[in-house]
Amino acid sequence: MIEAVRWDGTTLHLLDQRRLPETVSVDAYTTGDTVRQAIAELRVRGAPAIGIAAAYGLVLAMAPYRNATAAEFAAALARESAHLKSARPTAVNLAWALDRVARAGAWLAMRAEAEAIHAEDRAMCRAIGEHGVHLIRPGCGVMTHCNAGALAVSELGTATAPLYLAHVRGVPFRVYACETRPLLQGARLTAWELARAGIDVTVICDSAAAQTMASGDVDLVIVGTDRVTRNGDVVNKIGTSGLAVLARHFGIPFYVACPASTFDAHTETGADVTIEQRGREEVATIGERTFVPDGAKVRNPAFDVTPAALVTGLITDKGLLASPR
Amino acid sequence: MIEAVRWDGTTLHLLDQRRLPETVSVDAYTTGDTVRQAIAELRVRGAPAIGIAAAYGLVLAMAPYRNATAAEFAAALARESAHLKSARPTAVNLAWALDRVARAGAWLAMRAEAEAIHAEDRAMCRAIGEHGVHLIRPGCGVMTHCNAGALAVSELGTATAPLYLAHVRGVPFRVYACETRPLLQGARLTAWELARAGIDVTVICDSAAAQTMASGDVDLVIVGTDRVTRNGDVVNKIGTSGLAVLARHFGIPFYVACPASTFDAHTETGADVTIEQRGREEVATIGERTFVPDGAKVRNPAFDVTPAALVTGLITDKGLLASPR
Repeated sequence: MIEAVRWDGTTLHLLDQRRLPETVSVDAYTTGDTVRQAIAELRVRGAPAIGIAAAYGLVLAMAPYRNATAAEFAAALARESAHLKSARPTAVNLAWALDRVARAGAWLAMRAEAEAIHAEDRAMCRAIGEHGVHLIRPGCGVMTHCNAGALAVSELGTATAPLYLAHVRGVPFRVYACETRPLLQGARLTAWELARAGIDVTVICDSAAAQTMASGDVDLVIVGTDRVTRNGDVVNKIGTSGLAVLARHFGIPFYVACPASTFDAHTETGADVTIEQRGREEVATIGERTFVPDGAKVRNPAFDVTPAALVTGLITDKGLLASPR
Repeated sequence: MIEAVRWDGTTLHLLDQRRLPETVSVDAYTTGDTVRQAIAELRVRGAPAIGIAAAYGLVLAMAPYRNATAAEFAAALARESAHLKSARPTAVNLAWALDRVARAGAWLAMRAEAEAIHAEDRAMCRAIGEHGVHLIRPGCGVMTHCNAGALAVSELGTATAPLYLAHVRGVPFRVYACETRPLLQGARLTAWELARAGIDVTVICDSAAAQTMASGDVDLVIVGTDRVTRNGDVVNKIGTSGLAVLARHFGIPFYVACPASTFDAHTETGADVTIEQRGREEVATIGERTFVPDGAKVRNPAFDVTPAALVTGLITDKGLLASPR
């Protein structure tokens, strides 16, 4: 598995995900400010990966103050932590990781805390993999959407964890990665990391999902999620709910992989979640070319809500849970 | 409405559809050979539009022979007709239109026959529009896929004909054009021609269709088709069947607009239709950029089959027909 975020004890190494799959470039970071910039510029993406990178970023930012007075240290910690948080103000995981590292107080304890966050994330992914690996039967076809893989999380990823474990254990299977317009994370990231691991992966346009399911080549769907509401509704990348409707129509099980920390006890149902509308350019412009004429509007919802009733089960680090329905 | 194919009695004017929406370029053609090239290079697309362009192409190709001996004329006609047919060997409509023009025998009769083919196509579109216009109720939202519009057919198009007629008659409505990966005909062509006509059109990624339907903004779906089999199954651009499944899930009527000539009495069901698989590049490369990594495969079906059971009705030039189910 590729490591999108790697820490060698003193330096942070980040894979520049903006340039995939054309260029595989890993850059070394030794200051908090450059890590902040990498997060702000989306070189690193995926909530857990952002949290881990930020945690190390704070460790790097505070290294010059490790022998400072307590007052100097506290002032620098507040300043650097706020600076890192401002990289992606709405990223809950980023703030959570920074606060957790900051609470450690002394620099060495902070470094240990960042490493612990990273290790826990790896263990969480492995636990998801163990609870889902039995779903990957020899010869089966698995459809996935967007990227909830090693690039977004750590090591095994979430939606990809059962796949990586099955592959390591010698189970043959095929993956169909929906390209995931508008930003093409399925083609650019998921297909890239799975192919790199030697897994048989085929990219399809999102519009080809129904035909691929109808052909009988898909035995199950596994996706990730950003949030699961109290009633079991799943908030995930735009296109997820459509796949769930298709899977139900074709009688294909639909699984959602996520850490138990993704459960949002404060939100009753998916209807209570505001769907972020993103910019026109993401849809209208690809590379150098513009495909949407000026006279046409664009609607670009970032997420959609998959009703709990369409979810077969949740593959979590705490076990495989049947969806409440 | 834009005229993709315009004939002024002596010269053929073709809109170069490859360059839309960035550049609107109409080129004049006065020889059969240049028309053949335009068809081969996909400057003109859509089965009816190709047939009409080819018909005029044969008229242009035979103009130099109008005063030739009967033997010379016949030899040139066979040669020029075969040359034009070779532009898109699998296009049934192209061969049909050329044969029909060729049968007219004399040059003036051939020209009249080409003009008749064009006029009949316009009348067919208008009839489809008349049979579907009542479906477009004030304030409604209509989703469509790919381009079965003026650019592919003539004047009103097929799937767009009810929309153009409703707009001309002052009915306010919104259109959601699915971008239609891989070739983006929905964004590039449908959105362009509707916006140009002053119709309220919004482009969405194919992956956003479910969220858009779930939001309550879509009251009906209208798509075109390449072929309707005897049992009523609909063969159309990849992505159509997925929209039909979603429409059924959300309780939204799903209509298919087409001339009655699209009914294929020789094919029993959609299962008897071989789905063309197209090249990797269409999916992997957009503009100058490659988004699918080398190690991943690509599956690129050009069409899919929508079962008759998911089709609410067929809007044809002979009337609005309930789908057999």
